[in-house]
Amino acid sequence: MEKTRLQKQFEFIKEIDKEKEIGRQTYLSSASRKENDAEHAWHLAVMTYLLSEYANEEIDVAKTMLMVLLHDVVEIDAGDTYAYDEVGKQSQREREEKAADRLYALLPEDQGNFLRALWEEFEARETKEAKFARTMDNLQPIMLNAATNGRAWKEHEVHLSSVLKRNARTHEGSEVLWQYAKENYIEPNVDVTIIKDVDLDD
Amino acid sequence: MEKTRLQKQFEFIKEIDKEKEIGRQTYLSSASRKENDAEHAWHLAVMTYLLSEYANEEIDVAKTMLMVLLHDVVEIDAGDTYAYDEVGKQSQREREEKAADRLYALLPEDQGNFLRALWEEFEARETKEAKFARTMDNLQPIMLNAATNGRAWKEHEVHLSSVLKRNARTHEGSEVLWQYAKENYIEPNVDVTIIKDVDLDD
Repeated sequence: MEKTRLQKQFEFIKEIDKEKEIGRQTYLSSASRKENDAEHAWHLAVMTYLLSEYANEEIDVAKTMLMVLLHDVVEIDAGDTYAYDEVGKQSQREREEKAADRLYALLPEDQGNFLRALWEEFEARETKEAKFARTMDNLQPIMLNAATNGRAWKEHEVHLSSVLKRNARTHEGSEVLWQYAKENYIEPNVDVTIIKDVDLDD
Repeated sequence: MEKTRLQKQFEFIKEIDKEKEIGRQTYLSSASRKENDAEHAWHLAVMTYLLSEYANEEIDVAKTMLMVLLHDVVEIDAGDTYAYDEVGKQSQREREEKAADRLYALLPEDQGNFLRALWEEFEARETKEAKFARTMDNLQPIMLNAATNGRAWKEHEVHLSSVLKRNARTHEGSEVLWQYAKENYIEPNVDVTIIKDVDLDD
């Protein structure tokens, strides 16, 4: 028997509960443990609302909030790929496409297609909403890393050049916010024992 | 020196990171552990988007999403009060008001006032958005409890009469969703060993 629209919706809602068990590399501000994808997405959605006034171009805030809420849902199947894991990143796209095929097919077709497209938009990073969403996605772990005196950076022996490379396009969503993060969260942690590099002009 | 607008915003953003450490009584669908407030809020926001079509009255979806994203932020200071903890509920309002005073004052005045009012609206449960947000807040743990064969209900020896009393107004946000939850998540778990009662007409 074909499932009802509401059954499909609740099936997806139950399925994405698994996102709460996908771990990330970033520590909570208390450093008590690392955060997970669902918590991270929640944080980004609130940040999007509070910080949208700093977007380089005026964004559709509601659309961007929805985009960040679901941007990591594919990691339920594909797992989290650490920002500085160059090997994992090579197969990341393929794993995530396959995950999207399965997950969005759980939903009624209209909602599945809409949310799949919204995720593709996030990935493509071309619209102003996607650029701002990416800025949130990049700034949130930087903010938490700074709050824990760079704990994740230290553990992974991350170099400043990697942080800057990773964030080469973070300014595209908001020049103001990228500048703030650089001055307040990155520069104060540039030290051989935290972010392993000293050349901020790198 | 007066903090800048952006400093205040980031202070709030960092402060609410603590919501990830406020535990709830509901188990994840895998039953591996209980969920926390931030994960719960994320789940409600996605549910609000997907299920808004079933609201009794047409709602402002973006406003309702923001409302659920922050509805538990006061628990950073006030702690989570379990739905069936009658003693804790007596002091809950006072503890939460005090928490709201502190937390929303971290933000720039316009944003703090707006979000404080949105939380008060959620609490007052009078607008259609608040009613729908409350419906999400009540249905999500019911859905997760059913997914774990009523584990939290069993542990707390919850009676059906308590579940129904707790949900006496859940239909106000959506008759369709409350009916679905009753038939699919509550009734199948009415058993002396799960929800301790057998009289669904109670």
